[in-house]
Amino acid sequence: MSRSDWKPQREGNVPVYRQIADHIKEKIASGQWPVGSRLPSQRVLARDFGVNRSSVVTALEELAAEGILEGRVGSGTRVVNDTWSLLPSLPPDWSSMVDAGIHSPNLSMIRKINEEEFTPRMIRLGTGELSPEWYPRESMGRVLQRVSRKIVSLGYEEPKGLLPLRQEISRYLASIGITAAPSSILVVSGALQALQLISLGLLEKGSTILLEKPSYLFSIRVFQSAGMKLTGFPFRREGLRMDRVRHARASLYYTIPSFHNPTGALMSEERRRELLASCERERLPLIEDDVYRELSLDGPVPPPLKARDSKGTVLYLGSLSKVLAPGLRIGWVVGPEPVIDRLADIKMQTDYGSSTLSQWVAAEWLAEGSYRAHVERVRKELRKRRADADRILRKYWGDWADWELPAGGFYIWVRFRKPLPLHRLFEQALRRGVLLNPGSLYDPGDRSHLRLSYAYAPRREWERGVRIVADLLRDFF
Amino acid sequence: MSRSDWKPQREGNVPVYRQIADHIKEKIASGQWPVGSRLPSQRVLARDFGVNRSSVVTALEELAAEGILEGRVGSGTRVVNDTWSLLPSLPPDWSSMVDAGIHSPNLSMIRKINEEEFTPRMIRLGTGELSPEWYPRESMGRVLQRVSRKIVSLGYEEPKGLLPLRQEISRYLASIGITAAPSSILVVSGALQALQLISLGLLEKGSTILLEKPSYLFSIRVFQSAGMKLTGFPFRREGLRMDRVRHARASLYYTIPSFHNPTGALMSEERRRELLASCERERLPLIEDDVYRELSLDGPVPPPLKARDSKGTVLYLGSLSKVLAPGLRIGWVVGPEPVIDRLADIKMQTDYGSSTLSQWVAAEWLAEGSYRAHVERVRKELRKRRADADRILRKYWGDWADWELPAGGFYIWVRFRKPLPLHRLFEQALRRGVLLNPGSLYDPGDRSHLRLSYAYAPRREWERGVRIVADLLRDFF
Repeated sequence: MSRSDWKPQREGNVPVYRQIADHIKEKIASGQWPVGSRLPSQRVLARDFGVNRSSVVTALEELAAEGILEGRVGSGTRVVNDTWSLLPSLPPDWSSMVDAGIHSPNLSMIRKINEEEFTPRMIRLGTGELSPEWYPRESMGRVLQRVSRKIVSLGYEEPKGLLPLRQEISRYLASIGITAAPSSILVVSGALQALQLISLGLLEKGSTILLEKPSYLFSIRVFQSAGMKLTGFPFRREGLRMDRVRHARASLYYTIPSFHNPTGALMSEERRRELLASCERERLPLIEDDVYRELSLDGPVPPPLKARDSKGTVLYLGSLSKVLAPGLRIGWVVGPEPVIDRLADIKMQTDYGSSTLSQWVAAEWLAEGSYRAHVERVRKELRKRRADADRILRKYWGDWADWELPAGGFYIWVRFRKPLPLHRLFEQALRRGVLLNPGSLYDPGDRSHLRLSYAYAPRREWERGVRIVADLLRDFF
Repeated sequence: MSRSDWKPQREGNVPVYRQIADHIKEKIASGQWPVGSRLPSQRVLARDFGVNRSSVVTALEELAAEGILEGRVGSGTRVVNDTWSLLPSLPPDWSSMVDAGIHSPNLSMIRKINEEEFTPRMIRLGTGELSPEWYPRESMGRVLQRVSRKIVSLGYEEPKGLLPLRQEISRYLASIGITAAPSSILVVSGALQALQLISLGLLEKGSTILLEKPSYLFSIRVFQSAGMKLTGFPFRREGLRMDRVRHARASLYYTIPSFHNPTGALMSEERRRELLASCERERLPLIEDDVYRELSLDGPVPPPLKARDSKGTVLYLGSLSKVLAPGLRIGWVVGPEPVIDRLADIKMQTDYGSSTLSQWVAAEWLAEGSYRAHVERVRKELRKRRADADRILRKYWGDWADWELPAGGFYIWVRFRKPLPLHRLFEQALRRGVLLNPGSLYDPGDRSHLRLSYAYAPRREWERGVRIVADLLRDFF
């Protein structure tokens, strides 16, 4: 269970432990913590309530004495009774329902990361998100003002998304060599949703997805939850060997050719041609996840594979999340019209479309010149951060690790010179206030990488984080 | 395939049919209409391009002569070749992928409705959405201004959603008798998404959902696509017989107690108590879909079932879509904390959270007084519309149909005095520019109802629509 924002009153006659006991009773009586559910640990309760652990212990003991809670060593404290009911009875068996659900839970480390990101003062060394300080507050203010004059009603939109936004996306795509009418474009709530729609709309259970290893895709459960398998091929500059593809009988190939997550690699033009040609020959659909394209730091990026796709082999994913603001939750999928029609229909069944407000804001950003200016500014800042990160890493980790600086995007894929217990490192760093993204998230067998991102934490924090981890690393080397 | 916004040039030397042929070639060459895909009908192409059907026919004939298209009577025109390729080869077999995908397509009538809603000048007699003319443009402008000063960064949010919004929802819930801390609340992109998360997160394949018949739930595919079954019990004032529930061995009971969709019925207080007590006894989880609660037109509504839920039996759904603006895509689920935790984790895996911008706007609306003022205004308008609708229906359909006016919400569940071919009526009305929601959408066996909504179309349009349908009905009676 997650943090509470209730706190006991310090002034007054009711002792703190009593207030805590009453609060817990109310949680139970209102069905928020039903009979059978497990309480957070004493440590977490004490932190959330802002009290000493002893007050929590006293409160729990009292409730145990009343027969409401039951504590067992090793399995924590559970709600066993709600003594207020006239007819005592059990609630629905939620915990077996939670276990029985179809969709896999996130990897526990990802769940932990998702939660700990909101712990105040946490240093996030691996977060794949622009630094909040670069948020273009003033331009956004102007955009919101213009948009609020344009919007005459915030209704549901067409299944493929707000037409003015799709028209802007179509223009943007033309600027990177992709011909796509608004009818071949589906607006989605970020590229992740596109993957979910593809998993639900185009694949049979048991299908195989080919991909590079490591890959972002290993860190999420979207395809596996729908019953698909991921088959990763070691990531190499020369790319995938097509004889292996043939052997794998796959349904899709997933690639991040520009500033790959997590390695930062940029696929060469020649390699892109080869990959597309091979997939065309094999009639293997290709998902090109191109959400980092705009974040090129050292000159132009080769055209997207989609720009050369004359057969309709490629489903192309783009997004504003990595460049402008993830909180807009606006991305797009581009592909053959019958496929886009299918995905749009499932999108309607999933959430009736993305926020119309966000769609208007996105359209306005793409339409006006200040988007380019914003991208330029972000690139400049990222170049500085990348150089700083390199210097800091050399200084603190230089004896133990190697890395290549990426030509764009956010990530440095740091390789330690010997395998490490990454999970222990993660936990230890967390206790010292540093959040890491271990390589095992992106390649289950990995034991020697971390995905660092120089995009999120400010320089000083970044340095402090790297220093703290260096202290921990020393013990391993 | 859906409408195009390309149009041929009227001035210039290139004949219209030639331009159309070139346009189609470009669609094929860019992979938007890959080999194997089916073109829209001649009628639809002519409409979309804004040309005579003869120009379309000439263009298609020319492309057929070039071996690019192939037309067959009955199955339409298909792309059979892209003569530009050096190595002619087939694209991925998208059409069998579309067919093989896990998620069921929407009911074809729903797909049609989703599309036709955006046909200009279509009269929408059944649309469950507030009239665009009531959109609070000025207040929204002020809200956006305030929000743009508050937002310091639009990043990803906590798995359960923006905390200030959950705090406002928690306050709002308290005002209708529900005790729920922010940690028991998950922000979703509309109540539909909540249903999807429940289907993926809490149910096994083969589970049975009990519900009223007719029900909104029959018009969507969210549970069936995840492998669940719906078992409807005829909707009656006295509600469900619990002996049947026991027999059905269901996993969930779904209900819309306030201004039921599509019947408009309001469940009495007594009935609510009974239903909750029965579900508690059976340990049967209950989904209370309460998105129409605020739209009471004749005085107070009984408290939600959730307000009496001391066991944690009820998952409660609310939304701003029906009262403020569907385009915000903001709703909420309230339930036992472990269940909310599970749904939040799947939400993160689905779309990394709802639009942060929309969440800020929703929080601001709920926080400030003008939300209540807006709701009051909407109610006043709806009362007028309901009275108008009643008068209009009496005048034009009085001889053939019966209905009860609802005490709130949007819907009148009109019952014809004899069974009708509803699908034919739907198609005929559509051709005359009127969009209907036949009862069969909400109860597959229904042949005698229409769901009308007095909320969407302005009074005159509404009357015109009813009159047009009266002309059609005459033939059936």
